[in-house]
Amino acid sequence: MSTFPPAVENLIDHFARLPGIGRKSAARLVFYVLSQPIEKIDDFAGALVGARRSVRSCAVCQNWSEGDVCPLCQDVARDAATVCVVAEPRDVAALERSREYKGQYHVLHGVISPLGQIGPDDIRVKELLTRVGKGGVGEVIMATNPDTEGEATALYIARLLRPLGVAVTRLAYGLPMGSHLEYADEVTLARALAGRRAL
Amino acid sequence: MSTFPPAVENLIDHFARLPGIGRKSAARLVFYVLSQPIEKIDDFAGALVGARRSVRSCAVCQNWSEGDVCPLCQDVARDAATVCVVAEPRDVAALERSREYKGQYHVLHGVISPLGQIGPDDIRVKELLTRVGKGGVGEVIMATNPDTEGEATALYIARLLRPLGVAVTRLAYGLPMGSHLEYADEVTLARALAGRRAL
Repeated sequence: MSTFPPAVENLIDHFARLPGIGRKSAARLVFYVLSQPIEKIDDFAGALVGARRSVRSCAVCQNWSEGDVCPLCQDVARDAATVCVVAEPRDVAALERSREYKGQYHVLHGVISPLGQIGPDDIRVKELLTRVGKGGVGEVIMATNPDTEGEATALYIARLLRPLGVAVTRLAYGLPMGSHLEYADEVTLARALAGRRAL
Repeated sequence: MSTFPPAVENLIDHFARLPGIGRKSAARLVFYVLSQPIEKIDDFAGALVGARRSVRSCAVCQNWSEGDVCPLCQDVARDAATVCVVAEPRDVAALERSREYKGQYHVLHGVISPLGQIGPDDIRVKELLTRVGKGGVGEVIMATNPDTEGEATALYIARLLRPLGVAVTRLAYGLPMGSHLEYADEVTLARALAGRRAL
């Protein structure tokens, strides 16, 4: 016999379907929800439905957007000739925090992963090729993660882009700022050496 | 400039208010939500509002219930003369999993915590005293967590209950100090129940 009312079990089920949340964490979240004022939970439910219904992919960069074209793609101050390709919307946020990049983005919404059964057609590769094929793009910066799947995805897309006559670059590999040489892994050190530059 | 649409930021805010979820986890959850079919998110929102609106405190044991009195308190097979006092609804679930306890429960919805500014009036102590005061209860088992606040709460309530002429017992210290009832295994919980002693 379950000791939770059906409505509670049902909500636990929903929370437990979220990534990284097990049943015990889900139960904790549900008990928090039950302890909150009804209006706050109505707002939460409204935000959930509202975000899902109002947010779509930007027609240009594929990032989440409330309009057809996101504010960043509409921003004339950004250099439309440079497109930085990232795996996820959160990577756009990370690059924007650096305040160093003034070009535009393309969000793949994933990386190619044979193990995860995610192929090129499951991420926004076709949209990138169409966009670059229209002309006006001089450089595409591949900014997927420097891990196995990110590397493979970058190499795959680079091969498709080269015939279109654009420069394809990759974010530099090296030691992260503030890190310690002593603790760097061999591959990172080898890449940092290979990529050394005149001081 | 934020790179997420307002509806996304708003939903991140809501998720980030849940206990144990920071902004980065919240963003991950939101991106998962955006990737799901609209119907699934509508169901989630419905479950959220539904649970919050339909679930109240059981008039007898104060545990979450969809009716005025929860199924466990209505169950005539349970011994109404024995009341086990726990801090949270999840602790009822934990004790039920041990299949050792056949009495009823009382859920405090918290423990007395001077640091957290939670006093006896902020948890369901008054309701327990009223319930025991009505008679018919022979033994109250204090089953709060064996940590500082759980111990203090058990001792405080025991002192209020003794004048009412009931036996007040405490779960045996088969439970390791500083641990949490929720994570105890069934055998440990069963031993702790069997070894309870007068307080």
